[in-house]
Amino acid sequence: MQVTALQIANLINGKVIGDPDVVVDGPCKIDEGQIGKISFLSNPKYASYIYETEASIVLVGNDFVPDNPITTTLISVKNVYVALASLMANFTEGISLPTLISSKASIDADTEIGEQTYIDDHVIIRKGVSIGKNCRIYGQVFIGNNTKIGDNVTLYPGVKIYHQCVLGSDVTIHANVVIGSDGFGFAPDSDGQFKKIAQVGNVIIHDHVEIGANTVIDRATMGSTIIGKGAKLDNLIQIAHNVTIGENTVIAAQTGIAGSTKIGDNCMLGGQVGMAGHITIANRTMIQAQSGIASSIKEENTKWYGSPAIDYQNYLRSYAQFKNLSDLAKQLKELKKEVELLKSK
Amino acid sequence: MQVTALQIANLINGKVIGDPDVVVDGPCKIDEGQIGKISFLSNPKYASYIYETEASIVLVGNDFVPDNPITTTLISVKNVYVALASLMANFTEGISLPTLISSKASIDADTEIGEQTYIDDHVIIRKGVSIGKNCRIYGQVFIGNNTKIGDNVTLYPGVKIYHQCVLGSDVTIHANVVIGSDGFGFAPDSDGQFKKIAQVGNVIIHDHVEIGANTVIDRATMGSTIIGKGAKLDNLIQIAHNVTIGENTVIAAQTGIAGSTKIGDNCMLGGQVGMAGHITIANRTMIQAQSGIASSIKEENTKWYGSPAIDYQNYLRSYAQFKNLSDLAKQLKELKKEVELLKSK
Amino acid sequence: MQVTALQIANLINGKVIGDPDVVVDGPCKIDEGQIGKISFLSNPKYASYIYETEASIVLVGNDFVPDNPITTTLISVKNVYVALASLMANFTEGISLPTLISSKASIDADTEIGEQTYIDDHVIIRKGVSIGKNCRIYGQVFIGNNTKIGDNVTLYPGVKIYHQCVLGSDVTIHANVVIGSDGFGFAPDSDGQFKKIAQVGNVIIHDHVEIGANTVIDRATMGSTIIGKGAKLDNLIQIAHNVTIGENTVIAAQTGIAGSTKIGDNCMLGGQVGMAGHITIANRTMIQAQSGIASSIKEENTKWYGSPAIDYQNYLRSYAQFKNLSDLAKQLKELKKEVELLKSK
Repeated sequence: MQVTALQIANLINGKVIGDPDVVVDGPCKIDEGQIGKISFLSNPKYASYIYETEASIVLVGNDFVPDNPITTTLISVKNVYVALASLMANFTEGISLPTLISSKASIDADTEIGEQTYIDDHVIIRKGVSIGKNCRIYGQVFIGNNTKIGDNVTLYPGVKIYHQCVLGSDVTIHANVVIGSDGFGFAPDSDGQFKKIAQVGNVIIHDHVEIGANTVIDRATMGSTIIGKGAKLDNLIQIAHNVTIGENTVIAAQTGIAGSTKIGDNCMLGGQVGMAGHITIANRTMIQAQSGIASSIKEENTKWYGSPAIDYQNYLRSYAQFKNLSDLAKQLKELKKEVELLKSK
Repeated sequence: MQVTALQIANLINGKVIGDPDVVVDGPCKIDEGQIGKISFLSNPKYASYIYETEASIVLVGNDFVPDNPITTTLISVKNVYVALASLMANFTEGISLPTLISSKASIDADTEIGEQTYIDDHVIIRKGVSIGKNCRIYGQVFIGNNTKIGDNVTLYPGVKIYHQCVLGSDVTIHANVVIGSDGFGFAPDSDGQFKKIAQVGNVIIHDHVEIGANTVIDRATMGSTIIGKGAKLDNLIQIAHNVTIGENTVIAAQTGIAGSTKIGDNCMLGGQVGMAGHITIANRTMIQAQSGIASSIKEENTKWYGSPAIDYQNYLRSYAQFKNLSDLAKQLKELKKEVELLKSK
Repeated sequence: MQVTALQIANLINGKVIGDPDVVVDGPCKIDEGQIGKISFLSNPKYASYIYETEASIVLVGNDFVPDNPITTTLISVKNVYVALASLMANFTEGISLPTLISSKASIDADTEIGEQTYIDDHVIIRKGVSIGKNCRIYGQVFIGNNTKIGDNVTLYPGVKIYHQCVLGSDVTIHANVVIGSDGFGFAPDSDGQFKKIAQVGNVIIHDHVEIGANTVIDRATMGSTIIGKGAKLDNLIQIAHNVTIGENTVIAAQTGIAGSTKIGDNCMLGGQVGMAGHITIANRTMIQAQSGIASSIKEENTKWYGSPAIDYQNYLRSYAQFKNLSDLAKQLKELKKEVELLKSK
């Protein structure tokens, strides 16, 4: 698809600075710019590339002021990332799906499948399942009995969903994710052996959620494990039984949330964060990567770091001293000697 | 299934306090209580809910003493979790399996499969495999050549077991777990390249083990990686080559154990713990979440925290001071000034 | 296969010390030695076993000097691990593959598959894919449209590769790995909702790479996520969009690398390490397990520890004081009192 700078500017509400007729057919990175491609500048770290990039067009923010002459055509927009998101969707192809309903899929007779929903080879769909319209269920997916799935849902290859779970509409789940596996619930006997507690709840995933590859979301012991509307989960995340994730909360890769914890709306969790069970996290909480959250956070819009986590700035101040700790200890020792000397005078 | 309070009490050796004829048909959480459901009170954090829950019956411990009047019927038992485990199993349905041996499975002629063992669609079972009776092998599972599996084993969808592994009886393995993949063994050449060391051992999993979704257990370089009887592993755990996990040891999600480490019996490891290779951990050791264990632990029944981990209480004491570290450093600096002043007098 | 000590010594350029005619048929560990097996001594921790092992032959380094009499036959070599790697490959069988191209695989007509390449049951290969010769594609693998794969590649069961990725030759990928899933890219709207940024790049994996089970490598937003020649990745690792991993870099299990970070050649990363996005790591950098790398490392051949990581030795020195921090604080308090006393004199 060949488009001009002017056509793109019209599509994303931008303003052309330069040649409105220059033509591009796809995106590129600003530090790997090519003629005939469109790039973007958002992270100021990359600002120096804009003066030398080969890219024919570069998206910039309205507030961008060049330090040097620029030869490429610019399109200025209010929010570069949002404009980019709109634009890139037009250049994407995705994984192909050859037929609507594959004859190599195993689909129980007692299921409902909506219009224009693709079911790929070697998919297994059990009795009582319903799937809405315009869904894409890729190869080797498993959907257990009585699970309900909305419209415009994409399940990438190898996704496994246990029985009686509920997925809303516009949900995207990446390859080899597991949803609805048993929560980790065992009762210790008096002799140190563990007896399994049956996990009879389910998982509910609301609209507009995206879940990264190889993430696991356990079913509730009773009730539901819940992923709120618009939440985004990265790869290899652990969500234990009876957890609730709030709306539009974003969680980076390899983070783990222990059982029954409730995370509020619009929170941002870095990667490899750990959260204890049975705690509550206020809306708009920000957690630095690798932090450990041991107790509830009640005030909204706070930032945390460390294991166990404390106030973000406090952690940085303390850690700055931690680096000098052997020197501090030495100073203390010397000071003690001096005080002894003074006392003996 | 509708059951009365009296029937339940008889099933789990409990005592009814209230209406023995009240009827329930399933479980619910105490903070989401519904009429016609049975709930439980174990964690004291939730005690306040018992006075207002809509649940028709609540399981409580023998030692529970109410602070306020209670309207719901109670059943008191010795151990709430063990009673709950017995009870919930009666309300569970699980993932359905439509046929005993699916015609869509790929099963080598040279295999042994026990009575009442289900083999689901798109399962692959290679030559020399034996599987006991009453097993449930769900869709898209792969079992490599010569692997031996006991009775009453459940392999959830997408489990991959490499060749020559051994699983005992009453083992449950959740979706997309990998067992018997090559250990991470490479020999560095003089020019910085790595040459693979063939991994010719296997994995042995003893009876009554449960393993969570997307966990990986590597095969031994030589000999066996061993998971002891009754051990319980959560999701997304890494068990490296030649590790031994003791009996009834419990490991929370996202923990990783490096090669050749031996963990004792009845240990409890929190989530996201890391253990170095070639170390030995005594029985009944407890490790706090996110800790890093760098060397062997010889004394039984100790508790550890930090990275590298130290005594649990010691870590908490030190961390309490860490939070004030910039203040401590400031105090030290001021004190030095004062001592200088005293010296100059 | 029965081989003599002399035959083995000739194969690996070693020297027999003892009986050249003693016969073995497989490997064993030195602490679990058996008659008729060959073992090895590399880690000095295990040196004491060589005097009592039942193994018929033990590989040792040229520099090994026994402290006590040894009854077993030794073969001395320059590099025990490299010799072992050569030797073990002769004792390995691997997972069997019954037929060259399974009739139960779904292979698009528009694909190219090289000579002696096995395609197992329930594999899905989409249009435009090319696979070289002597590859082994195990059961339930998915390969998306236009992905290109070299010669001598092994994809273990359940591997999922999205569209338009590129794998070199002599690449080994373990079970349930995901390659080419969407990077975690979302643009926040003004109302706190996130809009997906299409991920139109791919993943390129160079020759001689090995990737452990359940690891995830996301496709680039634009351009490519790149795994350099000879790199070795362990299990459950997260590689985000647009990351570059250098040649012969080794990464242990459960480590996560955030978006656009570039790691140099011959680096060694421990397990559970986290790296921030958009940073650059110099060649031959060593990172201790569980460390967090927050900013670029410019000097080559340095060693790091902590979260955020600092110089390795510095961390150990500081952490040694951290353990005594409550005692240090107490000493400081007492010293202040003494100084007050001196001042009041």
